[in-house]
Amino acid sequence: MYFKCEKSILQDAVFTVQKAVTGKSTMPILGGILIKAYDGEILFTGSDLDLSIEKKISSEVIEPGTVVIDAKLFGEIIRKLPSDIIEIKTIDSNSIQISCQKSKFKLIHMNSDEFPELPHISENMIFSIPQRILKNMIKGTIFATAADDSRPILTGVLFEIKDKRLNLVALDGYRLALRSENLDTENVINAVIPGKTLSEVSKILDDSDRSVNITFTPNNILFHLNQTKITSRLLDGEFIKYTSIIPSEYSLKVTAKRLELLDCIERAALMGKEGNTNLVKLDIEEESLVITSNSQLGTVREELNIILQGQPLQIAFNSKYLIDVLRIMEEEEVIMELTSSVSPCIIKNSGQDNCTYLVLPVRLLNS
Amino acid sequence: MYFKCEKSILQDAVFTVQKAVTGKSTMPILGGILIKAYDGEILFTGSDLDLSIEKKISSEVIEPGTVVIDAKLFGEIIRKLPSDIIEIKTIDSNSIQISCQKSKFKLIHMNSDEFPELPHISENMIFSIPQRILKNMIKGTIFATAADDSRPILTGVLFEIKDKRLNLVALDGYRLALRSENLDTENVINAVIPGKTLSEVSKILDDSDRSVNITFTPNNILFHLNQTKITSRLLDGEFIKYTSIIPSEYSLKVTAKRLELLDCIERAALMGKEGNTNLVKLDIEEESLVITSNSQLGTVREELNIILQGQPLQIAFNSKYLIDVLRIMEEEEVIMELTSSVSPCIIKNSGQDNCTYLVLPVRLLNS
Repeated sequence: MYFKCEKSILQDAVFTVQKAVTGKSTMPILGGILIKAYDGEILFTGSDLDLSIEKKISSEVIEPGTVVIDAKLFGEIIRKLPSDIIEIKTIDSNSIQISCQKSKFKLIHMNSDEFPELPHISENMIFSIPQRILKNMIKGTIFATAADDSRPILTGVLFEIKDKRLNLVALDGYRLALRSENLDTENVINAVIPGKTLSEVSKILDDSDRSVNITFTPNNILFHLNQTKITSRLLDGEFIKYTSIIPSEYSLKVTAKRLELLDCIERAALMGKEGNTNLVKLDIEEESLVITSNSQLGTVREELNIILQGQPLQIAFNSKYLIDVLRIMEEEEVIMELTSSVSPCIIKNSGQDNCTYLVLPVRLLNS
Repeated sequence: MYFKCEKSILQDAVFTVQKAVTGKSTMPILGGILIKAYDGEILFTGSDLDLSIEKKISSEVIEPGTVVIDAKLFGEIIRKLPSDIIEIKTIDSNSIQISCQKSKFKLIHMNSDEFPELPHISENMIFSIPQRILKNMIKGTIFATAADDSRPILTGVLFEIKDKRLNLVALDGYRLALRSENLDTENVINAVIPGKTLSEVSKILDDSDRSVNITFTPNNILFHLNQTKITSRLLDGEFIKYTSIIPSEYSLKVTAKRLELLDCIERAALMGKEGNTNLVKLDIEEESLVITSNSQLGTVREELNIILQGQPLQIAFNSKYLIDVLRIMEEEEVIMELTSSVSPCIIKNSGQDNCTYLVLPVRLLNS
């Protein structure tokens, strides 16, 4: 193997595929990056079996070949080399030389035969979506996945396509996050993608309107963008029927400025931190919302103007769940739909109908 | 107590004195900030006994008084309040109210009688120096203090004034850092300041030419800048006679571009990381310096142009010590003064004579 490549291009490729090299595998070969040089192109691959990332770049290939190199060390070397042409070539049966200007590294490489084969996916593209939108949908749901493994399916995000709409859903038993976008497809899909791999995917997606093509197989999802292919294993099992959790009716509706509400809850949460209850109490009145909290160190009272449709209500929440939602939302005005102090609270944008958040209240001793 | 103050001014004061509240003390009162309101001024104090910081601000004081409030919670509350006038007043014997717009916090306060009295220092200012210069001198030496406590005096930085020159010195048994500035004073001082408190001091100093006034007592040093007073305990004991460690003669002298040398050593260090030896070998030749390193994963060879006066030499170092020094230095060109492969290496600026760094070599098996 022998090729030459501009440092910035090489660095970008290595950094991209490195995201799949988690260092958690017991297989030493998965600590490496597979480099395949052939006809004017080089293919880089990183994988932890759950998630695999491939990136193709154009380059001057003098002699084709395949090697596996330690991902961390290789990435650090490329990053530190001068911004110039980097030459990489095998110099004997088990080592390669990386050279750039007056720098010369000789690195042991691993046997590429040991590198696991990636699942073969024929790209019958199911749908295509601008990167920016998918990135936003992931960001808007992933925080609500379950942190512990007691119900593995809840550590993932549901990708559901039906009725020409893509829905991403995550829930952890205390709250639910649903983001939706219209989609021009007749397909019906129901697949759950591990939250951990999805978080790496969202780091690779950019904020542009350029498309990412998505393909599903029974066990995998493939994201294809530009010269990058990301393959993630799907989680086994059935996702919870989330539509039955989201109440379709409500008896009162609160309209509030999102950032003002967020600021008030964040301040109230400062007092709730003691003892880790995170408890904040909401007193919903005719024209104002009063938020209170207390701990051994003191009390806090916050007040903001709202528009209430329905009867006043007192209800309490874990402040963390409200804060997570209000921080991730984007519109200026939000709507809270409530029924009683023990039923779920729905939070939506007052404008666009592209998200539904559900937060369970905390039952107070006197309620 | 009852006063009103603009949020930004209050926040600045609280953040400054909080730096002395380390939360490591066993005395609960030291987790608090002492607030003294009197004639149009408020004095904030934080202390962990080793380091005390006082900051005075002007403010509308309606009723004088003194309280101690939990530093962390108070700082978080002030930070999260809207940018507006904040009112603080005692509302009963053990609590205060903080209010701003529609936010109201009621906080338990601690008994200010329990707050330890700060050492009384009469300010017979010994010298005055621009903040920017002192900050730079601290940054340029503090990294060489000893990390472990086996010789407590080495965890500090020596402030030495003699011959109209201020010298800051730190050393840890493997390397030494010395920064010097001319000073218009006849005083002679020899005091060692704990590295930990000095690092907080340097965070408060800004990059301006405004002066900081410095006063010494037998047990303390006082830094006075604008409305802020920082008092640090001095370390007991005699500092090592550092001048006898620094060789006054050398047999070869290397002149190199600092950033080029740093880049080469940083890259070479990537290979030396394996097994944590950090070893890099320098081959000093007539017109070039060759740097090599190796580990189980491979080898590296770096080369850069230098000017050598004297005979060629091979010498090895812990790369970390060279990197620390070359990163902190500022000039374009550095000079290394060497004698043999087992004697200390001196690193200086090629221009200004304001710093002397010493690094001990690593003895190689074959040398």
